[in-house]
Amino acid sequence: MSFRALRILKEVDLILAEDTRTSGKLLKHFEISTPMVSHHMHNEHRTVQKIIQQLLTGKTMALISDAGTPAISDPGFLLVRACIEAGIAVECLPGATAFVPALVLSGLPSERFVFEGFLPVKKGRQTRLEALAQ
Amino acid sequence: MSFRALRILKEVDLILAEDTRTSGKLLKHFEISTPMVSHHMHNEHRTVQKIIQQLLTGKTMALISDAGTPAISDPGFLLVRACIEAGIAVECLPGATAFVPALVLSGLPSERFVFEGFLPVKKGRQTRLEALAQ
Repeated sequence: MSFRALRILKEVDLILAEDTRTSGKLLKHFEISTPMVSHHMHNEHRTVQKIIQQLLTGKTMALISDAGTPAISDPGFLLVRACIEAGIAVECLPGATAFVPALVLSGLPSERFVFEGFLPVKKGRQTRLEALAQ
Repeated sequence: MSFRALRILKEVDLILAEDTRTSGKLLKHFEISTPMVSHHMHNEHRTVQKIIQQLLTGKTMALISDAGTPAISDPGFLLVRACIEAGIAVECLPGATAFVPALVLSGLPSERFVFEGFLPVKKGRQTRLEALAQ
């Protein structure tokens, strides 16, 4: 948690959280009482336009995920794209991004790399791995 | 700056900094008085083994870059690899990584992406761009 993230989470009108129970523990620990609603892969398609309408009235919101950076293997892309289309300013606070420490600690050269995200669990997994091997 | 980074920078015996003047301002701001030596792309090849020798005597060190995450378009890879070879434990504190907020704010899908780092300034720049275009 960065000092800046803490300040923003206190200042915004609403926090969009991937799992409000998980994020609730974090907010409680830092004594943040900002209202929270859930925003995850199962409801983001449905709620993104309602969120945009609220933002257009001047409400400020912060999007957080259970761990790591929103939009990197986590919800975020749909909302950011919709904000850009609606002319709503978006900022991204720098913070923990799970794959970065993994890459740094691997001891492999990291000037250039490919991020593949989650591989398909079953169907297409082998195909993807074979494509990557080439 | 995260709370954890602040604690570690205070606790270690030595800080390896890309530019001691730049990092000096940060340390002064947070009232950190840990000794600092420079570790950058122009001396890392020469000093990495000396650093390893010191680490093997039990000294603890933190590596920081001027901005963003060490080892991502910054010094770090050589030292991490040498530590792994020497059996020295390395930890990477999650924090700001410049390209991640840029990617998130782009509004482009980010489940999969390629990181190309700094492109060649002159020689080979065009060749690399053409290879990427394909």
